[in-house]
Amino acid sequence: MSTPIKPDDEYAARPGEVSVELPGAFDSGVYFIGTIHTPWRTRAECPKNPRESKGAICSIEVDERYAQGLAGIEAFTHVVVLYFMDQARRDLITQVPRHLGIARGTFSLRSPARPNPIALSVAKLLKVEGNRLTVAGIDCLDGTPLLDLKPYLPTVDAIESILPPHKK
Amino acid sequence: MSTPIKPDDEYAARPGEVSVELPGAFDSGVYFIGTIHTPWRTRAECPKNPRESKGAICSIEVDERYAQGLAGIEAFTHVVVLYFMDQARRDLITQVPRHLGIARGTFSLRSPARPNPIALSVAKLLKVEGNRLTVAGIDCLDGTPLLDLKPYLPTVDAIESILPPHKK
Repeated sequence: MSTPIKPDDEYAARPGEVSVELPGAFDSGVYFIGTIHTPWRTRAECPKNPRESKGAICSIEVDERYAQGLAGIEAFTHVVVLYFMDQARRDLITQVPRHLGIARGTFSLRSPARPNPIALSVAKLLKVEGNRLTVAGIDCLDGTPLLDLKPYLPTVDAIESILPPHKK
Repeated sequence: MSTPIKPDDEYAARPGEVSVELPGAFDSGVYFIGTIHTPWRTRAECPKNPRESKGAICSIEVDERYAQGLAGIEAFTHVVVLYFMDQARRDLITQVPRHLGIARGTFSLRSPARPNPIALSVAKLLKVEGNRLTVAGIDCLDGTPLLDLKPYLPTVDAIESILPPHKK
């Protein structure tokens, strides 16, 4: 059952936002495999999206346990970075983004608040030194846990399209 | 500590593949929020990547609990689909892909085997009916659990670059 959130709710005061009751247990688990270091210490400081980070230099530290997994990554110009927005609410199913002012479903937004708060950025890979990558194009809080790194493959990941992001 | 896998290992017989001991506990959990329906019932049948699925029509069924989260998604031409490769090994840190024949780190491969087996496809959104999306451009096994849907934003997600996927 979904529950409209009261305007006086501490975390989501905007009318129109709806939360769901989440299942009592997780279906599987994730390991935090490293840490992302960025210049942003509060949510208010974070850029709205990776493109707006304006090339700020960030670093990704992969835990020693997994460091061998980086072998070969230096051959790629860009990497897909998956990370866990561990401070976000997971129960919001409709949200009212400030820039829209009306409610929209969570899956049509890039908000960190979602049942599985997994974010992705396509980051430019600048340098690899041991278990540390230097990158540009990440928009998350300093200290965000890393979930995965993948090579970015333009032939698979980039959609060439003359359409704007919205059809209408 | 990493452990070379013996050639007689049942699941990963290829020399050069290395596994790590995973932590004893997960750091957080994921909910399976729906199911992906595809024409592929075995790994051997699956296309090598979404581009090679040649437009096969697949469907994504979002659990009723989360269905309200789809509001507004029909406005987008493409969606980022995150899903959980729940049958993949999670401990392989170097792997020998058949098409390469040499060992490479897991994070420089798109293999489903990785510490957090979260895959992503950029799928073309063809139709939305209630809690079911019809899409093209997914390469996973029938029945794969869904983790997240996001609007694909070319201005943020597509890297315009004249570089081939490999720098060298």
